[in-house]
Amino acid sequence: MFMEKGRVTIPTDANFVEGTKQIAKLWGADAVRDCDGVSLPKNANELAKYVYNTYFVVRGDNAWGRKHPEEAQRIFLESNRIIADGKQLIIDVSKGFLKEEIAPDFDNINRWQVFDRTTNEEIKSWHLKDNLVVIDSLPFHEYSVDFLARVTWHPVQIYNYLTNSWTCEKQLCYDPAYPHTKEYIKSYLRKWLEEHKETNVVRFTTFLYQFNLIFNDKGKERMVDWFGYGEAASIPLLDGFEKETHLKMEAEDFISNGSYNSPFKMPTEKYKKYIDYVQRFVSSTMKELIDIVHSYKKETMMFLGDDWIGSEPYGPYFKNMGLDSVVGSVGGGVTIRMLGEIPHVKIHEGRFLPYFFPDTFFEGNEDNAVAELEKNWVTARRALLRCPLDRMGFGGYLSLASKFPKFVNRVASICDEFRLICDTSSKSRPYSSLKVGILNCWGKLRSWQAHMVAHELWYQQIYSYQGVYEALSGLPVDVSFLSFDDILNNDIPSDIDVILNVGEERSAFTGDKYWKNPVLVEKIRKFVSNGHGFVGIGMPSSTDSLEHCFALSDVLGVQVEKGLTLSIDKYNIEKKSSFITKDCTDQIDYGEGCKNIYALDNAAVLDIDFSSRFKRNVNVGEVKLAYNDYFKGRGVYLAGLPYSGQNARLLYRSLLYACHKEDKLNMAFSSNYNVEVAYYPSLGMYALINNSNKAQETFFFNFSGESKKIKLEPNQMLWEK
Amino acid sequence: MFMEKGRVTIPTDANFVEGTKQIAKLWGADAVRDCDGVSLPKNANELAKYVYNTYFVVRGDNAWGRKHPEEAQRIFLESNRIIADGKQLIIDVSKGFLKEEIAPDFDNINRWQVFDRTTNEEIKSWHLKDNLVVIDSLPFHEYSVDFLARVTWHPVQIYNYLTNSWTCEKQLCYDPAYPHTKEYIKSYLRKWLEEHKETNVVRFTTFLYQFNLIFNDKGKERMVDWFGYGEAASIPLLDGFEKETHLKMEAEDFISNGSYNSPFKMPTEKYKKYIDYVQRFVSSTMKELIDIVHSYKKETMMFLGDDWIGSEPYGPYFKNMGLDSVVGSVGGGVTIRMLGEIPHVKIHEGRFLPYFFPDTFFEGNEDNAVAELEKNWVTARRALLRCPLDRMGFGGYLSLASKFPKFVNRVASICDEFRLICDTSSKSRPYSSLKVGILNCWGKLRSWQAHMVAHELWYQQIYSYQGVYEALSGLPVDVSFLSFDDILNNDIPSDIDVILNVGEERSAFTGDKYWKNPVLVEKIRKFVSNGHGFVGIGMPSSTDSLEHCFALSDVLGVQVEKGLTLSIDKYNIEKKSSFITKDCTDQIDYGEGCKNIYALDNAAVLDIDFSSRFKRNVNVGEVKLAYNDYFKGRGVYLAGLPYSGQNARLLYRSLLYACHKEDKLNMAFSSNYNVEVAYYPSLGMYALINNSNKAQETFFFNFSGESKKIKLEPNQMLWEK
Repeated sequence: MFMEKGRVTIPTDANFVEGTKQIAKLWGADAVRDCDGVSLPKNANELAKYVYNTYFVVRGDNAWGRKHPEEAQRIFLESNRIIADGKQLIIDVSKGFLKEEIAPDFDNINRWQVFDRTTNEEIKSWHLKDNLVVIDSLPFHEYSVDFLARVTWHPVQIYNYLTNSWTCEKQLCYDPAYPHTKEYIKSYLRKWLEEHKETNVVRFTTFLYQFNLIFNDKGKERMVDWFGYGEAASIPLLDGFEKETHLKMEAEDFISNGSYNSPFKMPTEKYKKYIDYVQRFVSSTMKELIDIVHSYKKETMMFLGDDWIGSEPYGPYFKNMGLDSVVGSVGGGVTIRMLGEIPHVKIHEGRFLPYFFPDTFFEGNEDNAVAELEKNWVTARRALLRCPLDRMGFGGYLSLASKFPKFVNRVASICDEFRLICDTSSKSRPYSSLKVGILNCWGKLRSWQAHMVAHELWYQQIYSYQGVYEALSGLPVDVSFLSFDDILNNDIPSDIDVILNVGEERSAFTGDKYWKNPVLVEKIRKFVSNGHGFVGIGMPSSTDSLEHCFALSDVLGVQVEKGLTLSIDKYNIEKKSSFITKDCTDQIDYGEGCKNIYALDNAAVLDIDFSSRFKRNVNVGEVKLAYNDYFKGRGVYLAGLPYSGQNARLLYRSLLYACHKEDKLNMAFSSNYNVEVAYYPSLGMYALINNSNKAQETFFFNFSGESKKIKLEPNQMLWEK
Repeated sequence: MFMEKGRVTIPTDANFVEGTKQIAKLWGADAVRDCDGVSLPKNANELAKYVYNTYFVVRGDNAWGRKHPEEAQRIFLESNRIIADGKQLIIDVSKGFLKEEIAPDFDNINRWQVFDRTTNEEIKSWHLKDNLVVIDSLPFHEYSVDFLARVTWHPVQIYNYLTNSWTCEKQLCYDPAYPHTKEYIKSYLRKWLEEHKETNVVRFTTFLYQFNLIFNDKGKERMVDWFGYGEAASIPLLDGFEKETHLKMEAEDFISNGSYNSPFKMPTEKYKKYIDYVQRFVSSTMKELIDIVHSYKKETMMFLGDDWIGSEPYGPYFKNMGLDSVVGSVGGGVTIRMLGEIPHVKIHEGRFLPYFFPDTFFEGNEDNAVAELEKNWVTARRALLRCPLDRMGFGGYLSLASKFPKFVNRVASICDEFRLICDTSSKSRPYSSLKVGILNCWGKLRSWQAHMVAHELWYQQIYSYQGVYEALSGLPVDVSFLSFDDILNNDIPSDIDVILNVGEERSAFTGDKYWKNPVLVEKIRKFVSNGHGFVGIGMPSSTDSLEHCFALSDVLGVQVEKGLTLSIDKYNIEKKSSFITKDCTDQIDYGEGCKNIYALDNAAVLDIDFSSRFKRNVNVGEVKLAYNDYFKGRGVYLAGLPYSGQNARLLYRSLLYACHKEDKLNMAFSSNYNVEVAYYPSLGMYALINNSNKAQETFFFNFSGESKKIKLEPNQMLWEK
């Protein structure tokens, strides 16, 4: 009865049993899953080898939530900022928030803080009256209240509820850091397991604490941060942390002047310690729950999203949970790598796009559905060749997809491609010409998670940096994530060829104050001088210095003109050709780029933008791409790098050039950047992939550098021996 | 013999006496001047009422300079920055500089400083060997030497010499802070006056210290700063300052981490004290020289340029000199105002463009010469209507100009226009609808001198701010320059309607650390709340805060997204129409603009740029123009404002709107922004000027608001009663 092909999960529901069987056969699916708003057929385990069932840990049982409001989850929030026009200011902290989502915790106002935001100092002269904060204010100072609130509606349910106009009950969420609730969720899990005999994989959606997702008083999102620990402001955890570390986490430690500790902000040591503490609690608690599941001979799967806070799959405590598998949605190559490299689990599953939802699967929209599928697959495929997942799947209503035969057939061939990739790359590691170390504040902890705000959402301020990771996800290079502390404490690992520093000015991804540490600067300079590379994208090594913003301008060959050195003439404005730009056929796209970058005398300017307003031969032009010989190594600067085929190639050549490995270029290579090559040395196999939806011709170079002309169909994958 | 019309100065030379007479008559010129490379005719005082003769104070007498090399002028320079690759680093400080311009002062190496630029700390472990600096270095640290040098060739002469391939002797320059030299220049002046009977105006070009102008080893400019006090690093002045203040000015006080105290940099208190000290010396020394000139019954004129450092026409000591007149070149409206408002001199003269030099006055180029004249005149004229000069003039070789009859005739009519403007506005102050206070670090001291690097040169980083002053120079508003200290010490003057804060992030023109002073912030907020306006252009009130960069975001209604608050959703992205933008016919030009500006909830977004890459209805768009109601007043934000007719109008409307004076718009007004109106209440006269080189129709509104349609010829000035 079960499919032989395997590795594929499909959604199903009680009303589509026969259709499920047909499609499962065509796609080789060996697992079925439920989906929001539908239930699994009773005989689900006749449909597939594996039956996944969604499980919520901290929401869903409103009877429990209602009975124990004091054990609700908590979050610290900042009220609106208000200007005082007199000596007394009254602030209604809940103004601007969705009333149903949060309730100010008036029982714990000892944990609230009031700030004069004009001086950014805490003030003590305030009191609560009729649930309003009354402040003894200074006229024309700005104030806000950091207040603790109970979370009275699960944020992800709010999203689904409001988006789909649901009318079901609003789910409360309860905090398992309270022993009472913890015992309850364990007993509830046992009960649930008893009742779900058909399930053999418990799909946790998710664990204990939701990422920051706060709605405004119009029911629209007010704040979203996929990495936010705001809802891990659990009272027992705060107290436990204080007891253990003698450090008190206060409201402002969460609010952080309104940044809510965005991962873009340099984390404080205290904050880093707290998230470590939360991780330990999440890991140990989940271990107990996972052990229970295992005792029922079922497997456990984590959905990488929703209440994933504190799980940190790349953190030191993740392995302790004993989890069997992870599943996450696939937005492109970065998410493939983020999922695929998670250690200590047996199975990594990716949920591909599009969802089988009515917004895509309506009559007449089949071509668009296929195009979305194709784009998602092609972007993911190049990363899969570097780092395969174990399984793939889809979500939504299979009955909707079944009405689009072209779509169903293309998924079938994609499933075959997927299985071929998995089987091949599970037998041989793909060839890498060099190893890149991505240097930021988070290092390994946030591997493949840099420059995200809300999962997969486009932000104008980040796409020019996200493209770097997307490009890397499919390049024939090894990638590791290093933190500044790693380098300061342990030196640069000896296998690193190129260090990459990417991001906006003074952010956690470029490093800010770390670049004022001469030890770091010395180590990088020495590393490059020994023949390695340093590639900076955006505002690498940026500091708060207005005269010499880039601490490594000597390595990069470029500096930022912040207006204080306009009096120094800049003559290096002539564009040169180079190994780096050799494959560029179109104008290079730097995305948002960076302004006011100029080249130092010895740098080679590879691309520079001139204003059309005025022509001079000095003090003009904004450098977008440059390299700089630095003793035996090289620095390379790029102003930004949104993902595209040309940019992936540009990055690859920059990396090779930076560490003087130009001679490795024509080894397992395609002259046309729309086609990429993955090489599996121990099998002697080459996978050629056409990443474009047009036919492409290319010169394919094997590992010995011998070339031949090859033609690929749109999106084709081709294997060569 | 002398012309009756007057107010005009022309260049002449011994070979063009008859031609001079004819043109002088046509233009109504009453003064002749000499010019570089020519000498005045012997009978110059028969040609005109006034004869100007150029006089150099600290250069020209090489015999003296050679005899007293120890009394040469000095400058502090920073050597190239060099990375140490070992434990010893050798730096040749003169590398990269023009050998003939400067000579390292090895006799005063006690005034040199060596810096580890990686830590930016001074290091003491270095010595001089064979005129090279030998440093005990830390590997991979960067070093530079702040060294004292004698100036061995006058920088302005270098420029002329190299530009015109001269072969004459290279002029030394000597420092009148040495008593010996001071006595000498006084006696030399007496001798010169004796020898120049025909001269009745001594045109000082200029006084004692040259602005920073340093050439590189290829004879090209290396550094230029029209405000730089580098060459006022006189040893006697340094010592005198230390004796008076007990503060030691060290090399790094001049180098300032490579910024050379650019006026864009927040000045230190010590530096401000030193420039005050230099001003006192320049003023008292020039007083002595000017007294000598007066004792010969001649008048004195200062050329505003070259060795003008320490004169600071808007400073507190300028009046003490007893100077009669100033002359400066006219680049546009800003230079008109900069010259015209200089206090304590009787005569303000502007030298208009183009120069009568062969680069413009060659055969076949007459139309271009006329166009340049027209453009210069039209840009200047709108400022003259607000603030007239007393005299105008030209430079170069009159014989060249005489070959272009169209040009000669247009100058004649311009001279008439000039005299009419002068006569009218000397009888009545033009009407102003409001008063603007431009708030920056320099205040009154640098009135109309903000955002300049080298006089009149275009820089991509400043034209978007220079345009603000250019626009203001001809608008019917009063303008004053305020420093932050003025406001902190004395409150905001009661006659100010709108405060303007303009410039790039954290510069001296926006104020940087001043915005961390809550007293300043309170005062501005209170000022606006009382019904006044605050207009910010570029990065107004910017601080080093990454979460809340604009200290006055509450007033402006906008804030900067530096990447740390991406998680907070921004919904205010809808463009509204407004009084401010009502006259805009073309897309608004913000110049370089500013990136990542978003609107707070209550602001009105008037212009916003969207990326073509992605369409969302939240977290997108970059606000370029917005206003914000703030209690009884308003804040207005503009991302930049290069000068144009439309932008001048945009600024005017912004100012009116900010302080709720919209009802003043249609009083002495032109509906078409290419035409501007100056109104002289006590004469009941209106000057209408067409600033464009096309004919224009407009509705002219008189002071009572009555309108009529008027047509103006290209560039025409029209007077209405």
